[in-house]
This record gives sequence, structure tokens and C-alpha cells, in this order.
Amino acid sequence: MAVKQKVLLLGATGETGASILNGLQESGNFDVEVLVRPASADKPSVQKLREQGLTIWPVDLDDFNGLVSAMTGTDIFISAIGPNDLLQQKKLLQAAKIAGVKRVIPCAFTTVAAPTGAMLLRDEKEEVYNAIKYLGIPYTVIDVGYWYQISFPTLPSGKVDYAQMVPVKTIHGDGAAPNILTDLRDIGRYVARIILDDRTINRYVYTAGDVLSENEIYQIAEEISGEKLEPSRVSNEDVEASVKQAKAALAESPHDNMKRIGVFVAQYEHSKYVRVDNSPRYADYLGYLNARELYPDFQPTSFRDFFAEVLAGKGRKVYS
Amino acid sequence: MAVKQKVLLLGATGETGASILNGLQESGNFDVEVLVRPASADKPSVQKLREQGLTIWPVDLDDFNGLVSAMTGTDIFISAIGPNDLLQQKKLLQAAKIAGVKRVIPCAFTTVAAPTGAMLLRDEKEEVYNAIKYLGIPYTVIDVGYWYQISFPTLPSGKVDYAQMVPVKTIHGDGAAPNILTDLRDIGRYVARIILDDRTINRYVYTAGDVLSENEIYQIAEEISGEKLEPSRVSNEDVEASVKQAKAALAESPHDNMKRIGVFVAQYEHSKYVRVDNSPRYADYLGYLNARELYPDFQPTSFRDFFAEVLAGKGRKVYS
Repeated sequence: MAVKQKVLLLGATGETGASILNGLQESGNFDVEVLVRPASADKPSVQKLREQGLTIWPVDLDDFNGLVSAMTGTDIFISAIGPNDLLQQKKLLQAAKIAGVKRVIPCAFTTVAAPTGAMLLRDEKEEVYNAIKYLGIPYTVIDVGYWYQISFPTLPSGKVDYAQMVPVKTIHGDGAAPNILTDLRDIGRYVARIILDDRTINRYVYTAGDVLSENEIYQIAEEISGEKLEPSRVSNEDVEASVKQAKAALAESPHDNMKRIGVFVAQYEHSKYVRVDNSPRYADYLGYLNARELYPDFQPTSFRDFFAEVLAGKGRKVYS
Repeated sequence: MAVKQKVLLLGATGETGASILNGLQESGNFDVEVLVRPASADKPSVQKLREQGLTIWPVDLDDFNGLVSAMTGTDIFISAIGPNDLLQQKKLLQAAKIAGVKRVIPCAFTTVAAPTGAMLLRDEKEEVYNAIKYLGIPYTVIDVGYWYQISFPTLPSGKVDYAQMVPVKTIHGDGAAPNILTDLRDIGRYVARIILDDRTINRYVYTAGDVLSENEIYQIAEEISGEKLEPSRVSNEDVEASVKQAKAALAESPHDNMKRIGVFVAQYEHSKYVRVDNSPRYADYLGYLNARELYPDFQPTSFRDFFAEVLAGKGRKVYS
């Protein structure tokens, strides 16, 4: 029987982290332990993990010695830290190096985008990837594109409103930009494969359940629902203006995390639809491996099946 | 007969650029044109190129339309710009994109090092590589390690002084750090291969005539010269102190290029000997292809043969 790999997971109670935890547990190949901030140690979501029998490490992310202790004996450290705390990973990575962690998975788990200049969110991730390369520790960057769960259109009947974080009623530009999409629930399943794979060491990998344009997404939604959708059109110029506006708002209040999220949202649209970053073509250009090609036997959920589930009332609103 | 690739070369009169020009001409596979700043257009070194029949494009690096004109019809743009002008490549790259250049070779041509944080020189190169990736244009980064021409030790007899830019009389740390080294004259020969190779598109490649530690270099020099060398020892702490000192001097006069060069020199030593960045192992980690493996039929000059030439009086002092 193969020895289980010991994984230390940060961010296990977030959307991505929960998917990862689930995927690792489902695979049966890992002993998972969970790193939490002391302030979160008694939250009900963490309590639930404890009740599952998971070892919880409450450690302040500034407590270097505590981090080294938590990492000691860890084979793989996975960070699914929140988007406003990305740079806090630097200390974690130094601790991983000291502790001899065999592979680190920094918080990527987003769309494919230019390393710098296209998205503030990605710029900070790049800073972390460069910190890893400076340290010279083995790593894998795993991007997942955009989630199905925030990519499906609102229906006139209101039938899918219950599962939408925000309404989706627009098409950007000509609606033809291909986008890498993954079902949030499949992220962990892919991660469980990728982190055991020698081919992915020191590489960037993207997962994709489907690659679809907005036009294709709306068409699938019409076919399955039988409803007629009439999305409004957003021009590339409008998207660029939104980015400019969001940046100006953040410049006025640089420490306002809601303003940062505003920039993230506007830049996602710009990167996905105007630059067409989040596409297999640009991922290839940047040297990403394609998880679909690495694991041809793994069948991720298709967007079509996902949307049918949502229409059947089996969806879930993310971040709720 | 294969159609020759049109290459536009910037920096053709510098040490690296001259090697590249020579390598491209030697291969016979290229039509080379040369981009120069208007201020350099009448220098004797440029006049010499003109006399060889090369087309010279005198264009200001801020003149976007002029750059696009010079690049139009170019298959491959190669930049061997000086270390203090690296960021000026950004406009050149935008022009290359507009002109439809098929591959750009930014000014790398240095040691393998961490993408950021280890060397100021490398940090600026990284900014340029990221500008390329933002534009999405095909590229190849070619690093060459350190030159033989500035890596051989001074002999007590003074026999090789004529070919040394600065004396080399020290060994850093335990002298065992392996370093990627290339004969300056072989850079262009490698470039002529690499830029025609589909395998190197959107990749990083390193060339190496030899991979040697300082201990090995001193041993070879002793064997060939029959002289006894007694290098002084520089500790890692000394190297770190030199970096600190050079940085402080630059901080006092941030626009003094000599102070910048001082930082470059100190950080080269730190990166090569303390961090051991300029090694095949770290190059592999960073995802570099190895030109020796790509072109097994190409025999670069060995360090041993190079040093024997220098000892025989056939060397040349670089930057002279």
C-alpha cells in the first residue's frame, strides 16, 4: 500500500480550499492537516473540520517558528489564501523551505492571465511565484479559469436566481472570446491528481471542464432552459472604462478591500474578454500544461451538465 | 534554397551584439540589418558595418513610427542593448508587435538567476520579459552564463594580463559552485541555431561551453600554464557585505551608472557563488532548455582550449 502524502492546507474553509479538501479526501491518497489563523480556530466552519477528525494547526501567519513547526513532516503545502492576503504567503514559503516541504502549491486557482500588468490580483500572485523561485523550492502553479458557478446567465423566469451570487445578463464585445472554465467542485479533484504527478513539478498547469465563449454559454442556457435570453452588450471600451474607474476608486482609498475587489472584478472582465488571456492559446504561450491532456481518464463536469443541475434546483450560491 | 530570415539586430557594436552578428553571418541563414541610435550612426564601429554592406537603420528608440518602419518585414528582432538601457526595450517590443515580427529575442545573454530579488540587472530584464508576455508576442530568452573572457585567473608570470579586463585572483566560498560559462565568440553561433529552432519558441534557453567551479578553473589554469596559483579567499559574508555596500552607494547616487555597475558586479558574485543560481540545476528548475542538448553536433570552445589560446597570446581584452 502506498504511503499517504501529508498535505498541509491553508484556507480550507474558503470556496476553493473546501473543494481542495474534498478532492484530497475523496482520493484517499492524502493525510490532510489544516492551517488556520488563531482568530479563526473556534469558528463553526473550523470546528466542523475538527469534528471530522482533521488535525488543525492554529498558527499566526507572522509566527515563523510556529509555521515551521506546522510544516515539519509535510510533503505538500497548499495555499488557498484569500485574495487580499496573497503577500502573506511569503513568510509561509520561507517556512516551507526551512521545514523541507517537498512541493508548495501557492494560491493561484484563478484565470490564466499575463504575469504582470493585466490584473492587480495576478501581479501579486506573480510576486509570490517569484518569491518561490528565489527560494528555489519545488512548486506547482494550478490555475482553473473562471468557475461555472459564477459564469451562467440569469434566466427571465428567475429559476436560477437562487444560485447566483450576482446576476449575469451581459455579453462582452462580440461574445466570442474563449474562456477556460472549471466547476468549483472539480478543482479539488484535479488538485489531487496534479500534486502527485512528477510531470507538474515546477510547472504551471490549468484545469478546464469546458472552454466556452459567452455566446456558447448563452446558447447552452437557452437550449436547456427553453427560455429566450436577451443579454445586453458591453463594448470593449466600456470594459476599459470600468477598469479605469475602479482603479481611480482604489487610488482614493488604497486600503479599502472592497475597492480592491472592485478592481479585481473589472480587470477579470478586461483580461477574459478584451485581452482573451484566459484561453488555451494564451495558456500554451505562457507554457502551461493542460490538465485535460495530463489526465484523459478524468471526466470533469461539463458546463451543460452543471447548468442542468442548477436548473433542477441542485445548485448552490457561492460565498453564502 | 531556403529563404533567408530577416534579422534586425540592436547593439551590433557591443561585445555580445558583435558575437551575434558574426554568428549570424557565419551561418549564412540570415539577412541581417542593424538598428542604431542616430547619435551612433556615424561612429567608426557603425561605419565599419556599413562598409560590410549591412543596412543600417538609425532610429531614435523613442521614435515609435521609426521603429515600426525598421521592424516591418523583420522575421526576428534581437536586442543586445546595454545593461543601463534595458527598459528602453519596452517601446521596441510594442513596435515589434505592430510590425508583426515573428520572434523577439530580448536582451538576456547573461547568467541564469532568480527572476527577481537576486540581481538588479535581472530584475529589469524580468520587467522586459513580462512586457513581452503582456503583448503575447513569440520570444526566446537566451542566457549564456558568464563569459570565459572574464572568468580566467591572473597568472603570477603576468602572461595573461594583456587579455584581462580586471585581475582575477580570488575564490569565493569553498570554490565549488558550478557555473555555466560560454566563450563570448560562441554566443552568436548558438544564437544562429536557437532562433531558427521551433523548440525554443516562447522558451528560455541557456548555452554553455563548459560548466566549471572556480576550483576547476584554477586547476585547469595551473595545469596549462605550469604556474602555481595562490588565490585569496572571499567568504560568503564578504560577498554579502560587498552587495550591501554597493547598494548603499547606488542609493546615494541613484542615477550614477558606475554605481549601478558596482551593484551588478557585486550581485553577480553573490548570485553565482553564494546562491549558485548560474548552474544547470537551477536553470532546469526555472524551466530552461539546455542548448548543449538541443544541438549535440555543435562543439563549443572548451574553457581549456580557450585558456590555452590566451596563454599563447591569441586572447583579446573585452570592452577595449
